Formats: sequence, structure tokens, C-alpha cells
Amino acid sequence: MANIVIIGAGVMGTALAVPPSSTGNHRVSLIGSPLDDDIIHSIQTNRHHPTLNTNIPDAVDAIHLDDVSEDTLRSADVVVIGVSSAGVSWIMQYLQEAQVTPNVLALVTKGLVPNADVDAPPLTYADALAASMTQPAGRIVGIGGPCIARELALGFPTRVTFASADESLATDTRQLFQTSYYRITTHSNIVALEACAALKNFLCIGVSAMFSAYPLGDSHAKNPLAALYNQAVRELFLLSNWISHASSAHASARANTDDHVAFDLAGMGDLHVTVGGGRNSRLGMHLGSGKILSHVLGNDMAGVTVEGVDTGRSLLSGFKAACKSGVLEVAQLPLTAAILDCIENDRAFAFDFEQLPG
Amino acid sequence: MANIVIIGAGVMGTALAVPPSSTGNHRVSLIGSPLDDDIIHSIQTNRHHPTLNTNIPDAVDAIHLDDVSEDTLRSADVVVIGVSSAGVSWIMQYLQEAQVTPNVLALVTKGLVPNADVDAPPLTYADALAASMTQPAGRIVGIGGPCIARELALGFPTRVTFASADESLATDTRQLFQTSYYRITTHSNIVALEACAALKNFLCIGVSAMFSAYPLGDSHAKNPLAALYNQAVRELFLLSNWISHASSAHASARANTDDHVAFDLAGMGDLHVTVGGGRNSRLGMHLGSGKILSHVLGNDMAGVTVEGVDTGRSLLSGFKAACKSGVLEVAQLPLTAAILDCIENDRAFAFDFEQLPG
Repeated sequence: MANIVIIGAGVMGTALAVPPSSTGNHRVSLIGSPLDDDIIHSIQTNRHHPTLNTNIPDAVDAIHLDDVSEDTLRSADVVVIGVSSAGVSWIMQYLQEAQVTPNVLALVTKGLVPNADVDAPPLTYADALAASMTQPAGRIVGIGGPCIARELALGFPTRVTFASADESLATDTRQLFQTSYYRITTHSNIVALEACAALKNFLCIGVSAMFSAYPLGDSHAKNPLAALYNQAVRELFLLSNWISHASSAHASARANTDDHVAFDLAGMGDLHVTVGGGRNSRLGMHLGSGKILSHVLGNDMAGVTVEGVDTGRSLLSGFKAACKSGVLEVAQLPLTAAILDCIENDRAFAFDFEQLPG
Repeated sequence: MANIVIIGAGVMGTALAVPPSSTGNHRVSLIGSPLDDDIIHSIQTNRHHPTLNTNIPDAVDAIHLDDVSEDTLRSADVVVIGVSSAGVSWIMQYLQEAQVTPNVLALVTKGLVPNADVDAPPLTYADALAASMTQPAGRIVGIGGPCIARELALGFPTRVTFASADESLATDTRQLFQTSYYRITTHSNIVALEACAALKNFLCIGVSAMFSAYPLGDSHAKNPLAALYNQAVRELFLLSNWISHASSAHASARANTDDHVAFDLAGMGDLHVTVGGGRNSRLGMHLGSGKILSHVLGNDMAGVTVEGVDTGRSLLSGFKAACKSGVLEVAQLPLTAAILDCIENDRAFAFDFEQLPG
């Protein structure tokens, strides 16, 4: 039996509590962040998660932050960071103050952290956390792949990747979470996985613009969408390699590119589910119809956090520097450049297909 | 100026006539097969293609088969085989009788040919044609990638791959066809490209079953679909390598898998546009809802040719032999095995996600 502690009772943190609790083998504690009081109250009183709109199994112990016992935290075998990117620094401070150093720190939070060196690639949380933690970087497990939280909570077949610089840690962690419907592959390149998980939200903006840029009858043309989906995966490969190669803590020993996460669940697979659903895709559809970014974020999507835009902002200066120095070849990355142009210069999304590499 | 002759005035053959004719630099002749008399008549009289439902540029010279001059054929720089797989042997006989040996024979026809050796991989048309032709195999160019014919004919941005064992031939042929909206990459592994182009129709059946197998609200769950889409691309990689390695004429010198056609337009990209549209996808949706193959082909889709089923039949015996001998690892190919099981044993499509490799 393992003690699994998930911090953050949003949709993804809560959904991730369901598979390990359903095995009956583990103690699963779901701790609400300071923003999750209503959710924890709802689960405690009627087992219902209001934003997931599903019932949560009795075996998941939902706990208000103020009610967490020292023992629950200190005995944790795995602590899952289940908050959004804005909550990561809070959670790290919370764990440090509670003097919790879990055997495994698992990450479902997606995002890139701007590098203090503005000419360098952005950092993944895997690197940023390792730098801020007393525990070794190798104890972090990243989770990526196509996973709509509500579907996982409902028990639909879902397949993801757990990655850790020490792959055996990913394999061990898989043992705690895997069920007949939650299927897990493992990988050693956690930085590339985390980079793909964040960047797919960013690249999704440009791909999704194709839904509105080329109307055809009652629908839209499919050839431009497929061409940019394909290009987005190629650029995920190049960008995640760039970020991964700059990482001191998590450089992967694997060289086979058919084994690369960009061409697997955390890249191609996750982009498949991201394009066409969610906030990044909605933004892309607006930009593809000719609206400029500030107009969409101030009107159609006022008050909505669009993670892909934040990821783009974290990427911008390092990307420019890398293209200038030749570390990245901008001719191979026209989709990235076009989306960054929307963000930096407040434009609608327009794409010249002649820019695509021959 | 080049002489481009396209034989077969179906949707894809005709669509492919549009880009080179729009450059104004080439003579483009569209020759109807014996089945295309009505189409040629329609284009000749009012420039309209009835099944594409688009107008065809004046620069495309539509010709009835009986009216083809010897000069048109003999002066061809490129002959495009634009018929369906059932017409390939007819077209080869026609060219031989006319003593036409074009500099380039380009293939848009998709399909696999059963191998005379039932334990061997099926052949692509690239190999089958090379064996039946007097001209060297290296003069064949395969065309793959996400391309709905009507969208190409309407001038929507479309990006595909031209492949030839002699890649410079693909590059030269690209010069004749590429326009601002028809973008072309090149590759040397024509056999892998042709294998992907055929196999994506087959694998699409299993992926598309996910549209009906997991209903959710007014739509369907997306996680199972993304998981099997991802798996289908992985299996395209393994199967196309197997077929390509067995090919004597077209073995590729390239080893980098990030440069593999399965993870590019002819694999991942084409599968993206195939899943959700077309006959293979419709069959998959029926099979995913619990209907058996013979029922669907005899009722819901009576009289409809489903290319992916033919491809599966061409694949079956060689696949079994390769799994038995260990040339292929069946544990890595559970989606292929599950679709073949539908075809061989007349079943509905059911998939156990626990079979997916860990």
C-alpha cells in the first residue's frame, strides 16, 4: 500500500485521484488548494465534483487544506502537484514549510518558466522545481499525453506517459496509478515531455486557426488543418529537443527519434485531443477568423486564462536569440514564428504556406 | 515546358491536374479511363467535374481515351496514374501497348498487392509496377500526404510528399507541380510512403471505431480516439518499415526516424485527415458500434468499396507469418491485429486497451 497525496482539487488533480483509488490498494488523499474550498466541501458532503460534473469514489479522501495532518504529508510516497501553473510556487513553499520531501514528486501542471537568462531556452517545471528543491531532480515524474480530465474521472480508456530522468522511478510510479482504463507508458526524457505538454497548447493556437481561416460549405477545409497539425508535431520535436538539450539536470540518454516523446502520446497524441477542444483552440479559431489577440482576450475571451499565450511569452526571447545564433533554424519553425508574431505584435493569425520547409 | 499526362479523371487524378495547369508553364492532358466518359464529356462541354463538383481550368485538356493521340502519350515527360487500384493493371497494359515509357511515372493510386509468397509482406505498387515495367524502378514517383481532392481542386493550401528511390527525380517532379497552395516535400523512401498511404486507410478503420465505441453526452470520448490515433501512427511506422525493408528495389538509405514518412505527411498527417471522413472511417464507426463486418458491407455500406479492407486482406497472411517468425512483434501491433481479426473472423471492432505496449 502506498500513500498518494494530490494537492489541488481542480479537474486534473481530482481526475488523477480516481485510478489509484479504484485499485483498492492505496490511500489517496486529495488536498484542496486555497482556491478549492467549495470543491472539497462538495465532495465531502455529496461526493460530487462541481466542475468535473462527476461523482468521486468514496476511496478518495478529500481534505481541506487547513485540516491536513502532518502525518498525511510526511508519510506521502508520492505527492502530485495538481494545481495550475500559477499555484506551483505556492505549493513548493507549502511543502518546504511542512518539511515534506516525498519519494516522488509528480507533475500534472503544464507550462514553461521564463529563463533568467533571456537568451536561453525557457525552463520546464521539471528543471525549475529541481533548482528550488532540496531533493534530487531525479525524484520528479512528469505526466503527459492526451487526457481530458472528465473522461479519465469517468473511466474512459486513456493512455499517457510518465517520464523521469531515472526511468525506473517512472516505472515504479506507474505501478501505483495504472488500471485497466488508465494505461501508462514510461520515458526517460522528462524535460522533452514537459516541454511538449506546454508547447502543444501554444502550437494548438496556430493549428486551430485553420478551423476558421478556410471555411468550406458548412464546415472548413481539412487539408490546411492536417498540414499545420503535421507541422506542429515537427516543431514540437525541434523545440522540445532545444529545451531538453539545454537542461543540465534531465538530459536524456536516448537518441532514437522513433522513441521521441514528440512523436508519441505527449506530443502528437496530446495535440490531437487539444486541437478542437479547450481554450487554446478557441483562441486560435478567433485569431484565424481575422481578429487580433488583444481584441479576443479583451472581448470574446475576457477573463479566460489561455495557457498557450503564457507559454509563447515564456518562449519568445530565447527563441529569437536561438534563431539569431543559429541554434534553431527559423526556416524549420515557421508555425512557431507565426504564432509568436500574433503574441508579440498583437495580430490575427495568418499563415503563408510557402514558408513551410520543402 | 513539360508535357504532363494524367490517366484517370476521377477526383484525385483530376485534382492533380489543377496545380500544374495553373502555373501556365506546362501542357496538362487529362485522359479519361474507360469509366470516365461522362466526366470527360462534362469537362469538355462546360468545364465542370460532376463528382468533384468544381470547375476545371481551361488549361487542362480533357481527352476521351479513344481520342488520345500517339504524340500526346509518347511526348509525355510525366505520366500520372490516377485510377483506382482496380485500374492499375489496365493502365500498365495500355501504356505497354502504346509503347510509352515516360521519364517519370507518378502514382496517386493507393493500395497493397498480395505477395505471391504468402509468407512475405505485401507489395506496394511501386514494387509491383517496377516488376512489370521495362523502365527502371527509379523512375517512379509516389505521392502521399493529407489531400482531399476537392480541396486541392479548389486551391486550398495542401501539403504532400513526393517520394522516389532517386530523390532527385522527386525534386525534379516537384518543380512541375508545386504552386503557392500545393506545397511539396520530397523523400527517398517511396516504398514506406506507398505503404503508409495504403495502410492509413486500414488503420483508420480501428481508430474511427472510437467515434462510436465510447459515446459521451451528444458526442464521444476523445481520450480513446487520441490514444488509438497515436498507436496507429506507431504501427504505420513499424509496418511500413517491414514492407520497405523487404523491398529489393526501393530500400532507403535514410536511417533517421525523425525523417521517417510515418511521422510526417504521408503517415501522421494523412491519417489526421482520413480519420473522421471517407469510407474507411464510416466503416470503422459502424464496427465500433457493435456491427459485424459482413453486416455493414451487406447493408449500411452495400456496394461501397472500402479500400482499407482490401489492404487488410493483402496484409493478412504475411503479417501472420512475420509475427510467427518474430520479424514483427505482435505485442507492438495490437491495433493491426484487432482490425485484421474483424476482417478475418467477421467481427465487430472491440479493443482491449490493456494490450497496448507499456
